Amino acid sequence: MARVFNFGAGPAVLPVEVLQEAQAELLDFKGSGMSIMEHSHRGKEYDAVHAEAIENVRKLLKLTDDYTVLFVQGGASLQFAMVPMNLLGAGQSADYVNSGAWGDKAVKEAKLFGNVNVIANTGKDIPTRMPKNEDLKLTPGAAYVHITSNETIAGSQWKVFPKTEAPLVADMSSDILSRPFDASQFGLIYAGAQKNLGPSGVALVVMRKELAERVGAKTPTMLKYKTYIEENSLYNTPPTFSIYVLALVTRWILKLGPETLYRQNVDKAGKIYQALDSSSFYKGTAVKEFRSDMNITFRLPTEELEELFIKEASKQGMKALKGHRSVGGIRASIYNAFPVAGVDALVAFMKDFEKKNG
Amino acid sequence: MARVFNFGAGPAVLPVEVLQEAQAELLDFKGSGMSIMEHSHRGKEYDAVHAEAIENVRKLLKLTDDYTVLFVQGGASLQFAMVPMNLLGAGQSADYVNSGAWGDKAVKEAKLFGNVNVIANTGKDIPTRMPKNEDLKLTPGAAYVHITSNETIAGSQWKVFPKTEAPLVADMSSDILSRPFDASQFGLIYAGAQKNLGPSGVALVVMRKELAERVGAKTPTMLKYKTYIEENSLYNTPPTFSIYVLALVTRWILKLGPETLYRQNVDKAGKIYQALDSSSFYKGTAVKEFRSDMNITFRLPTEELEELFIKEASKQGMKALKGHRSVGGIRASIYNAFPVAGVDALVAFMKDFEKKNG
Repeated sequence: MARVFNFGAGPAVLPVEVLQEAQAELLDFKGSGMSIMEHSHRGKEYDAVHAEAIENVRKLLKLTDDYTVLFVQGGASLQFAMVPMNLLGAGQSADYVNSGAWGDKAVKEAKLFGNVNVIANTGKDIPTRMPKNEDLKLTPGAAYVHITSNETIAGSQWKVFPKTEAPLVADMSSDILSRPFDASQFGLIYAGAQKNLGPSGVALVVMRKELAERVGAKTPTMLKYKTYIEENSLYNTPPTFSIYVLALVTRWILKLGPETLYRQNVDKAGKIYQALDSSSFYKGTAVKEFRSDMNITFRLPTEELEELFIKEASKQGMKALKGHRSVGGIRASIYNAFPVAGVDALVAFMKDFEKKNG
Repeated sequence: MARVFNFGAGPAVLPVEVLQEAQAELLDFKGSGMSIMEHSHRGKEYDAVHAEAIENVRKLLKLTDDYTVLFVQGGASLQFAMVPMNLLGAGQSADYVNSGAWGDKAVKEAKLFGNVNVIANTGKDIPTRMPKNEDLKLTPGAAYVHITSNETIAGSQWKVFPKTEAPLVADMSSDILSRPFDASQFGLIYAGAQKNLGPSGVALVVMRKELAERVGAKTPTMLKYKTYIEENSLYNTPPTFSIYVLALVTRWILKLGPETLYRQNVDKAGKIYQALDSSSFYKGTAVKEFRSDMNITFRLPTEELEELFIKEASKQGMKALKGHRSVGGIRASIYNAFPVAGVDALVAFMKDFEKKNG
């Protein structure tokens, strides 16, 4: 079997050990005679998986008892609606940072539910960047402050999270568990799984439990965080296979060590950024201090060369390097599970490609 | 590998051929060097899977062009909210049949959004049953009429669907694709996948496209059917692995032939019902004319005997025969993928158990 280097932005590469374990037990989970997909979500086999997934996240984020770990379907896009539905009371306002395509979507959705103050807008800045914390115009009495920790399309990343009086809410879809941070600084964190946590089909929500009490009585059962807290994310059938893979991925992170993984992530990104900086052929698209360690975005002198770059790289087993359809260019997504060898291969390819076409 | 007979109500047994195919290509989907879980939802490999899943459902339900096939996360439980959010306009009322635990949940959720007329209520009837079509008190001008085609917990099933002037909406989670029916009689059908279609994490929605136009402007993007129609269920990352398995399962049904499968389902259920009817030891819980071919519910003379029955059956590789926690008793769920051999084994076991304990 020849595995390729998958630079895709999500769904993204998974640890090969995780896939191998899932494959080995796909028809017979731990000697039970059934697949984990076939197990009841109320049986002891799945229950152990569910509990491990939650416990792994708790350990990795060093959560205290006032925080809860929830699994919700619908991806981060449904969270764009669930956050204001649950946290934004009538007559209140929320602060949002628009730092790119994802922050912008979160803003648009929140506006359906109440008053939104866009307290910083770097969404259209070129080169791409996050706002500086000192530039945020926080609104006194805001229900919460919403940020996007890493903009997958723009290739920009918040390096030091702002300290806010109102609960800080973050879409961490593209960098959750890729680096250490103080979870107690946040009121609510959410992340679609398909970048750093597992396959698509489940979103992780980590929140201070008390915030779930704000919800109005008319909110649908499946859209209330309270339901997930009270029923341990088992009010209805959860996406069991996605949570199972998430349990395996978080176990893999714990085994490797989150600090080791973080250093590896910084090193991986550093190698590519160094290749960009030591060349006038390639041009990074993000401001240096906000460069993402997860999604590395850059341009070549012409679109024709970009097309050739993507095509040639693909021939050498480096896949999905095309930038998002809305911005073009090149994007190398190198999440937790992306191997160091793939980064080395890309850097070597970049040098070679420049030599031939520069 | 010893596979057991899984009588679970959902997540439920999958065709062993489907699991084997998923296993074989789990690390390398069709020579692409990645798992289907790792493929972009906008790439050509996943695109073919997505298109096949939709096409298979279209073929199996013989859908005309005015119908659309959608994949939504959140299970049938989220559909309980999405149906009224999308179809029940301000000041309108909807007709609901409460035929058991699931019908009841649908009613409760709809009441958050508007006026609900419960036009028949057999939810607490013992023996369990569906209402007769002639007993439905349809409301003139209702926005729609909602039924539950098969009550998984009660073990009752609608045999002839009512003809209604208002669009007929059905929760078919537990019997979709298990029997032929005329889809054109329905305005909207939904089904959580984890019984007859695949793993949990995706719900199938089949609807007349024009109904999606009713939705209000303030409805969140991810909760509008319109979004899924316009974006071919790819507005955000769909649950790709669940849809992939659904594509394999529906392919398996097409290969076997839906008519063959239907006859097999009737035969399977018939064997167990015959065992019930020819015994005074076992007692079916549903009225004969509404007996479900999917979930066969029955009681033994005492709860102690029921416990022993479940325990002894489990020792012989017949798993998950316990009735739903809310009603007790025995439940044999024998969906499409449940093998005939498992039914024969159960019937033999029932006779043997009665001999020893009757």
